[in-house]
Parts: sequence; C-alpha cells; structure tokens
Amino acid sequence: MTKQLDDLFAFLRFPSISTDSNHGADVRDCADWLVQKLSGMGLDVELHETARHPIVIARNEHQADKKTCLIYGHYDVQPVDPVELWDSPPFEPEIRDGRIWGRGSTDNKGQMLAHILGVEETLQEEGELPVNLIFLFEGEEEIGSPSLVPFLKKHQQELACDVIAVSDTGMVAKGVPTMGYGLRGITCCEVTLKGPAGDLHSGVYGGAVANPATAVARLVASLHDADGKIAIEGFYDDVRPLEDWERAMWARVPGASDDDILAITGSTATFGEPGYSSAERLWARPTAEVNGIGAGYQGEGSKTVIPAEAMAKFSFRLVPDQDPEDISAKVKTHLEKHCPEGITLEVEVGHHGKPYICDPHSENGKAGQVALEQAFGIAPVLIREGGSIPIIQDMKEILGVESIMLGLALPDCQIHAPNENFYVENFEGGIRLNRALLKQLA
Amino acid sequence: MTKQLDDLFAFLRFPSISTDSNHGADVRDCADWLVQKLSGMGLDVELHETARHPIVIARNEHQADKKTCLIYGHYDVQPVDPVELWDSPPFEPEIRDGRIWGRGSTDNKGQMLAHILGVEETLQEEGELPVNLIFLFEGEEEIGSPSLVPFLKKHQQELACDVIAVSDTGMVAKGVPTMGYGLRGITCCEVTLKGPAGDLHSGVYGGAVANPATAVARLVASLHDADGKIAIEGFYDDVRPLEDWERAMWARVPGASDDDILAITGSTATFGEPGYSSAERLWARPTAEVNGIGAGYQGEGSKTVIPAEAMAKFSFRLVPDQDPEDISAKVKTHLEKHCPEGITLEVEVGHHGKPYICDPHSENGKAGQVALEQAFGIAPVLIREGGSIPIIQDMKEILGVESIMLGLALPDCQIHAPNENFYVENFEGGIRLNRALLKQLA
Repeated sequence: MTKQLDDLFAFLRFPSISTDSNHGADVRDCADWLVQKLSGMGLDVELHETARHPIVIARNEHQADKKTCLIYGHYDVQPVDPVELWDSPPFEPEIRDGRIWGRGSTDNKGQMLAHILGVEETLQEEGELPVNLIFLFEGEEEIGSPSLVPFLKKHQQELACDVIAVSDTGMVAKGVPTMGYGLRGITCCEVTLKGPAGDLHSGVYGGAVANPATAVARLVASLHDADGKIAIEGFYDDVRPLEDWERAMWARVPGASDDDILAITGSTATFGEPGYSSAERLWARPTAEVNGIGAGYQGEGSKTVIPAEAMAKFSFRLVPDQDPEDISAKVKTHLEKHCPEGITLEVEVGHHGKPYICDPHSENGKAGQVALEQAFGIAPVLIREGGSIPIIQDMKEILGVESIMLGLALPDCQIHAPNENFYVENFEGGIRLNRALLKQLA
Repeated sequence: MTKQLDDLFAFLRFPSISTDSNHGADVRDCADWLVQKLSGMGLDVELHETARHPIVIARNEHQADKKTCLIYGHYDVQPVDPVELWDSPPFEPEIRDGRIWGRGSTDNKGQMLAHILGVEETLQEEGELPVNLIFLFEGEEEIGSPSLVPFLKKHQQELACDVIAVSDTGMVAKGVPTMGYGLRGITCCEVTLKGPAGDLHSGVYGGAVANPATAVARLVASLHDADGKIAIEGFYDDVRPLEDWERAMWARVPGASDDDILAITGSTATFGEPGYSSAERLWARPTAEVNGIGAGYQGEGSKTVIPAEAMAKFSFRLVPDQDPEDISAKVKTHLEKHCPEGITLEVEVGHHGKPYICDPHSENGKAGQVALEQAFGIAPVLIREGGSIPIIQDMKEILGVESIMLGLALPDCQIHAPNENFYVENFEGGIRLNRALLKQLA
C-alpha cells in the first residue's frame, strides 16, 4: 500500500488546475507523469494535444476474442480558493483520520488512480488483463470538456469498445457500494425584462406602468403551481415513469431519506413535487430552478425606485426521456406567454445536456454490481444521480456504448470545496474494484 | 428682472449639498446669505441652529387683524453626481434657451426665491404686506428633514398660522398652473428569506428543498392579482373613493394622459389597477412596488446553484385614509401567510409617512386658485401628487393647518439629476404668484 499511496501523493502534488492559464505547465507536467506511470506498467500510451490540455490514451495489447472496456477519468482539478479555509495545503497531500486530504483526492485523481493501480496489480500478478483495456484520461473536465467530443468523433474507431466504466460519482454512504445508472440532463436560460427607459421614482410613477421586478417575480412564480409541480405546458410529457423496483430500492437507500436531505442541506423542511420521495425528486424527476434573480436596489437601506430592468437565470434538470431542445422551446413559449404587457422579454438560451439512463440489469450492469460486492463486501445499491455529466451521454451517442458509474465519492468528501478528501478505505476499495470489474466484465 | 436674476444666481452658486459633510460650510454660507437677503428686505430674521444645518425664520411685523401665512421652502440641494453629465457646471448658473441651468434652480432655490422676491416687490411698492408672513426655510429637506419636526413642536406657538403655502411640487405642463391638494403616503419594508444552510448544487439537491429565490418571487407575485390589483387582505379597506369632480378634471389635465405617461417613462404600455386612468392610479390609488430583489448568481454566464438566501425591498404608496402602520401590519401578515414551508422569513419594517389631502375648494384653496390664475393667465388644474412629502402632513398635525401646494417644477426640469433647470418664465410667474397669493389670502 505504501508504494500505491506514494503514487497517489505524487499525482496529487501537481496543481493541475485546468481553468487557470497560470497552471498550464502544471497540467502538462501532470499529463507527462501519467504517461510515464502508464508506460512503466507496460501499456501503450499516446498523448494527444488539444487546444488546451492533453488527452492521454493507454491500452494493453488487444486480442480479438476479448471484450473491450474503456475506463474514463480526468486528471485536472478545480481551483482551491478560498485557500485560507484549507486545514493543510491543497497540493501537499497528507493522511489524517483515515482520509487523504488534498485537491483532487476524490475528484478525480484518487478514483482514477485506483483504476490504474488495479490494472498494475493485475498485470504484475497475472501478466495480462482479462479484457482489452482503453484508458481515456482528459485534462479539461473541470472546464466542460471542450476537446472531448471532437476527440471522440475523430478517434471513434480506435475507441470502439463494449462497455465504459467511470468512477467520478458518489457512494450514498460510507461502506455502501453504489452503482449509478442514470443522470439528469440540463437546459439553462437567462431572461432580461425591460420596462421603462430608465429607473423611475416609485412615488411619481408607481401604479401606472409595469414594474420589471414584479414581472420577473411573476415569471418565476409561474413556473410552479402552489404544491411545487412545474406548470409549464407539456413539461412532463416525455418523463419516463419510475419503475417499481426503483421506488422500492430507493426507499431503503441509506443517506437519501428526507431526514438525510435535511441534515445535509440544513433546510428546515423538504419541498418538491407532490407524490414523490426526496430521492425520487432528486434522481428521477425534473426541476425548474431559479439560480439567480436581480433587479433594482439591493444595497443597504431603501431607494424607492421602479427599476428599468430585471433579470433571472434558470436551470432545468431533465430526466429520461426529456429532450433539452424540446424543453427549452417549451420554457421559452411559457415565459413569453406569461410576460405582462409593457415589458419586453429577452430569453437567452444557455447550455444543454441530455439526461442519461442505462439498464443496471444488463450483462455489463450485473458485472459492475458483482464487482462492487466483491470489492466492498455487500451488495451495492442502484441509484441515479441528480447532477449532470454530459460526457456520459456524449460517449453513448458517439461510441454507442453504455457507461456504468462506480462512484467512490462520499457526501463529506468536499469536492470542489476546501478540504477535499478521499477515504483511504475507498482508495483501497477502488483498486479491488478495478480488479474485480475487469474479471467480471470479461 | 436683472437684479432678481442676480439674486437667484448668487443663491444658486452656493453648493449647499446637505448630505455631504464636506459641504457643511457651504450650506452655512448659503443660510447666512439668506439671512442677509431677508434682513435687507426689512424682515425680522432668526437663524436657528440644529444638529446639522440651520433653519431660517423671517417675519414681518404681525398685526392681530391680519391672517397669518407661512411659506415653507428649503435652501439645501441634492448632490451633483455624475457631474460629467452636466452641460454646464452645476454651481455656475447660466441661462440658455429660456431656462436657468444649475443645481437647485427648480428644487427648491428658484421656487423659494420667487416667493422672497414677490414679498420684496410688495414691500417696495406697498410698504407693507397684506398678511402676517412667516418664512420657514430649512437646510435638511434632501436628507429627510430630521430637525424639522422637533423644531415645529418646540416653536408651535411662534409658528401659529392660518394657512401654509409650499412651492416644491410640479406643474403638469408648461403654462398650466397647477395646485396640489393631496400627496401619497408611504410604508416600506425589506424581507430576507433563508432556506438551506449554504448555497446548494442545483443538480445534486434541486427538487427536494425549497429554493429561496423561487420563494421570494412567489411572495412578490402574491402581492397582485393578474390584473394588477393588490391582493393583500384589507389593503383597500380605508381607501377614500375618488370624487366625481376629480375624475372629470383629471381626465382633462394636460401631461397626465396615458400617452403622456408612456412618453415620459419610455414604457411600451400602461399597466395598473383596472378601472382607473393613469392619472387616477398615480394620484389617488395605492401601490405595492418591489424596489429591489436579489438572490443567487447575477453575474455573467451560469452558476447552477440553489441560493441559501434571497431578499426583496418593497414600498407601498398610500392614499387617504390609509394608515401606514395598519398597512404595514397587513403586509406583514400577508407575507408570513405566503411564505412556503422550509423557508424562514424575516420582515424588517422601514420608514413610514402618512398620505395627505386637503380641500382645494376651501377658502384658502380658492385663494390659491385665483392667485395661480392671476399669475399665469389661465385657470389652474387641481391635482394630487404620487410622491410623498411627509413634512406637509407633519405640519398639518403639529400646527393644525392645511398646506396649499403651488408647484412650479416642470416634468423636464431634471430635479435630482444632471442638468437641473428652471424656466425663466416660471421664475417670473412665481414672483407674480407670491404677490397675488398674499393678496388673495388676505
């Protein structure tokens, strides 16, 4: 284990912050380290340049009679601000209380290296792998993977495979192996509402012209009925109903009860679409959230003004089989219909991502479940996730292959935040998981 | 006229910005100039110190058989920022296109000096005034008149009078003399809504907990029905209905038609309480306006967050006989009733001011009308104003006397803004108005 932790610490020491051009050389150094590590294990490694940060591909010698498994990961990390909130320096990893502390320890270096080290163990002990392996590691995940889709399209043939495995999601609770088989999609938009030509005195003109701040509030309010159900016409048309086994399993999943949600979020009550549990609302039902709203005077004291303009930013989390473009059009129609006279509405459509779902009871899905049970000692739970990882759907569309998500992140791993950490037991479990997974997939 | 314009230019050159402590000496110099001017006219003048800027009182020799008229004005001015938008320096007055350009030219130095110069002309020509006169000039109007109410209470007996005249409001259009007999009151409040303990990822947690940004929008939306009528229980209970003569007159008032409102505000449509014209909505109907709203991410691009907090600032313009404290309590009840589960609401009540109304057909009201007609050559229109001038109601309550409002400000006089200006013809008309007014009141 010491040698493996040494590898992880070396990997974590690179400040491979992909969004910060000052760290461009660090991201490159990290990619070079990866190339060396993978080459040293006897794999055939390619470093592909992109407009920003390289993509690293590694493969064993492929044999026609073996199944091909692609394992995806990313070696770039989030920024570390506010750095003063870290209990130990983000790029000087250390172990305390059974956890490895450092930026990238969970997201995604720790999880991805566990797969590499699992492969290394297998190669050392068995001399070869039970599958044809393709490692696909990018350095731009934290900036939205701008180079990945073009790369997948260009190298579609070389990347042909039977299954994709990704460890970049969560475990519902410590010691509870978790397989993800779905993700929500997303569509975003921003609205600007304009009323009078300039800010008006609310005494002199109040009551005779529409107030853009009131109008934006009424638009936001129009998105839901009083119970929390989304009121956009046709919004639920393509929502795939939950299956009975999902509802039954999710009712028992640790860490996702109403009480758990309240404890994690600090909210005083759950709130959402009637007829569904919190887990169901998060993993299998769509949302309409306002992420930002603003108009008029927000400073200290009062300024009795009718603002000339108001804005709001929305994101809609989508579930199978909703289509982002279809929902985006329905949202636009709804907003335009609900904009009052005297207000000019501009809708700027933002980024899109399709929802994802695969069958966890497929052959590959079952292999993933068995591998998780072998690595962690108990049968895994099967969940979907509330967040969006557009590349999973991109890989499905371009390579035609499903991804199984074998996440090792725990709710208190602080990904993207100060004091990111990774449980040593999950690092070790991840290595075991990789070994079991390749066997089971074979 | 040259001598009178010289006086006005001298008065305007003082940068008597009451809110800016750097201009404390300028405000004082301006008060001293006023004392000299009034003393030079043979009036008995007192300068009263306050915590900030002095109050100046001037009176002629009072005689028991004459009516007493108090004329109120203020010699302080608004700041001049953004100063780069002025076409000529704000404290170097000049005449262009028949207007006097400079800060304070309309609000309120020009209007107040017209009264002083009217008195000066009468004294020079007649040797005495037809009334007992009290000039009451303060230097803190633009900072909310903090010293005036205590001063009125302390000097209630010396300030006893039969009528108050104020020229600090508007004329509806050029050449249309205007008498104001009502003002809206105001009550303000600010709400803070708290949901989760910190900002949440809208993918991971969206759909299961209440979003404070949605909640604040729904609160704002709950204030009106779809047609624009205020939906707070009991809000209209004490609203005094419009009288037939008011509706008939306001329908003909120049500058207050729907088209005028659209031209002035730049809005594309009027909007407000059904069943009322724009003038009626502005002058005789109450409002519920949101002056500011904010939550979450308002910067460039998207941040898919459920904000932990949201805020909104409200002002309610009130009409006779609504009571600010009563309305404030009804608003609070309404907001609390409409706050969803899972959101904590804090309501902070802001400043209050009662609405004002007097009878324009009273003896003094008729005197004001005749004086306006004599000064401007046509019969005045009678209006109320949408804004709030709390001191008018304060003077009514403390001195027990009604105010007639004989405003000379035109809609394009840019008060409080760059390029404030005052029509020379209104300055001259104001002098004639004062002479006619004192005669008529006598």
